[in-house]
Amino acid sequence: MAMTVRDAERWVGRSLFDDAVPTPFLFIDRTILERNIARMQALANAAGVRLRPHTKTHKIAAIAKMQGQAGACGLTVAKLGEAQALIEAGIRTSFLVAQPFVGAEKVRWVLQLAEQNELLVCLDNLELAAFWGEIAAASGKVLDIVLIVDTGYQRFGVDWREAPAVAEQMARLKGIRFRGIRSHDGRTYRMPTLPERQKVACEEAERMAETAHQIRRLGVPCDLVSIGSTPGAYFVLQNGRTEGITELRPGNYVFHDRMQISLGVARPDDCALRVVASVVSLPRKGEALIDAGLKTLTGTQDRFTEGYGLVVNCPDAVVEKLWEECGLVRFADVPPKIGDRLVIIPNHACELTNLAEVVFYGSGDRIEGFWIAEGRGKVW
Amino acid sequence: MAMTVRDAERWVGRSLFDDAVPTPFLFIDRTILERNIARMQALANAAGVRLRPHTKTHKIAAIAKMQGQAGACGLTVAKLGEAQALIEAGIRTSFLVAQPFVGAEKVRWVLQLAEQNELLVCLDNLELAAFWGEIAAASGKVLDIVLIVDTGYQRFGVDWREAPAVAEQMARLKGIRFRGIRSHDGRTYRMPTLPERQKVACEEAERMAETAHQIRRLGVPCDLVSIGSTPGAYFVLQNGRTEGITELRPGNYVFHDRMQISLGVARPDDCALRVVASVVSLPRKGEALIDAGLKTLTGTQDRFTEGYGLVVNCPDAVVEKLWEECGLVRFADVPPKIGDRLVIIPNHACELTNLAEVVFYGSGDRIEGFWIAEGRGKVW
Repeated sequence: MAMTVRDAERWVGRSLFDDAVPTPFLFIDRTILERNIARMQALANAAGVRLRPHTKTHKIAAIAKMQGQAGACGLTVAKLGEAQALIEAGIRTSFLVAQPFVGAEKVRWVLQLAEQNELLVCLDNLELAAFWGEIAAASGKVLDIVLIVDTGYQRFGVDWREAPAVAEQMARLKGIRFRGIRSHDGRTYRMPTLPERQKVACEEAERMAETAHQIRRLGVPCDLVSIGSTPGAYFVLQNGRTEGITELRPGNYVFHDRMQISLGVARPDDCALRVVASVVSLPRKGEALIDAGLKTLTGTQDRFTEGYGLVVNCPDAVVEKLWEECGLVRFADVPPKIGDRLVIIPNHACELTNLAEVVFYGSGDRIEGFWIAEGRGKVW
Repeated sequence: MAMTVRDAERWVGRSLFDDAVPTPFLFIDRTILERNIARMQALANAAGVRLRPHTKTHKIAAIAKMQGQAGACGLTVAKLGEAQALIEAGIRTSFLVAQPFVGAEKVRWVLQLAEQNELLVCLDNLELAAFWGEIAAASGKVLDIVLIVDTGYQRFGVDWREAPAVAEQMARLKGIRFRGIRSHDGRTYRMPTLPERQKVACEEAERMAETAHQIRRLGVPCDLVSIGSTPGAYFVLQNGRTEGITELRPGNYVFHDRMQISLGVARPDDCALRVVASVVSLPRKGEALIDAGLKTLTGTQDRFTEGYGLVVNCPDAVVEKLWEECGLVRFADVPPKIGDRLVIIPNHACELTNLAEVVFYGSGDRIEGFWIAEGRGKVW
């Protein structure tokens, strides 16, 4: 009998280890997921900061709804297409579109979406803002824009010291409503020690608060002061360093992953998303081949550990190499048998539901249902 | 107006560089695609070897049909789900499923698919073959199996020197029809020089021919002797070293990519698949950010070159770093402008249609149509 996404219902009620359930597949532990959502929200509430979770990590409307019910003030998406997909799935909230975009038609798309839901769009270029504003003004509308500020990571953004002057100019453009600033200081991911990561996260918050202060001194309202990243959010919340920050945009915290374990903000038991794969070959001593590869786990590496994920039910195993549809696992001790299943915490959870036709969820080892990621592949 | 996969028809007839067409997107140059398909088929025909293209590279039924019309003897898929998807799209042919699998239900799925189409299934383990055979025999059926042989790469496979004895035992199993052997010697991808790559490819062919000879000496028919990989296929065909080989299973040759350029088997003009991305930010001197990242280009690197793809319309540009939905491009000379489009040959084309909701095709700069990859995400 065929095993396609149309048959997913057939496996509800079964165990992850039931060989009737085809591997490889993604499994979300719902208990861990709910705990992760509740914990970040509680930390934000205690600090008096709003939470606007980044949904690129899961791309699943059901999880976005859980985040909303927990108290999120709105949602973050990377791309307009992700907002479109969540809206089509029935979500009504305020969206922040984190990545800049180009093209007049995308601006018109924003204006259309903004008729039903608040849409905050981000960019770091004055000419682009002027272009967006002209299109909005031509339709008698106003775009809510957010300036991307660079606090030291050097990806997107106007340098924080130059941002107030740029903000002042942007605020004067026609068709534009200047709403505030946002940052994403990914230095938290590359610093080698926990104190350095915490220092960078606090620096991001301080620089953003200072930038907002300087913008207001120029007479420009700056209601939104939003900082990004899961480690950054934990670090500023745990250290009580959110003064002047109005919103946090962590994404990965719903799942956590091996990178977050390496960064010191999660334990394996906090990781909600796992890949279940089967051993399909034992070609040489100490080696097994599994049926999950780049098209399931992705080739993203964790700079602090070895291999492509943490095998939770076989801690001595190293997922040493991945090809498109298989992986080589090295075992120090007891080798597995053909058909054995490995449960793997991926290095970077944010890339996985984007690849999967179906995502199972449940508790413990039991599959209780499945989700189809509405935002999968929405790169526009 | 929304820009979703449902709107793809709207962009047919437009230029790749028309900013009404949303980026990032995949574009297949159909002229190059057809030339690649015809050329490999002609080389195989001239050598008197059958061609069974690996469809994991494109996952698109329309391209599989083109390969069939050009003269392919059948198709290769990595996973059963890919065969299922192609069959549902109307393809009737002989399929070789290259990757081993486990679980009784997958064996029953094979038996069901094999009622309408020949299905050759591959594995490298005697116990697994016995298990498959028992399930087939219990339904009064026979499975066509192919033994995976390792000619030196050390991924899947029984070592070629031990393969004849294993083949003899497999051929005796009930429920099993032993059809032959297949290899994939990926050493062609990692050897530093062209002569070494050619030597490895010829070695794969020689070892497979010798293995088949030894199997037949044991009284076991071995009709299929199949070798894999695009560089391997070119090298054995160009060097006239296909004696004893009955089938070739290249996949990447339909598109080619930056890896194939590095390996010396393609020029940029032979690369049919390109990613079109837009510059969305110019944050610092010499740097641009584009709207394509890991979720479009993947993080796979080419061991012989720098960065994440070759920017064909801006040869001095290096795609230096990718995040999920954006990439940092470094420019030595003239910087681009916001909204400029980069056309990028990816490092590894085989991973891209698996990520894309829609794949445009056309000639030159003109979009003439689009395909939806039926095999996208079929990891079972």
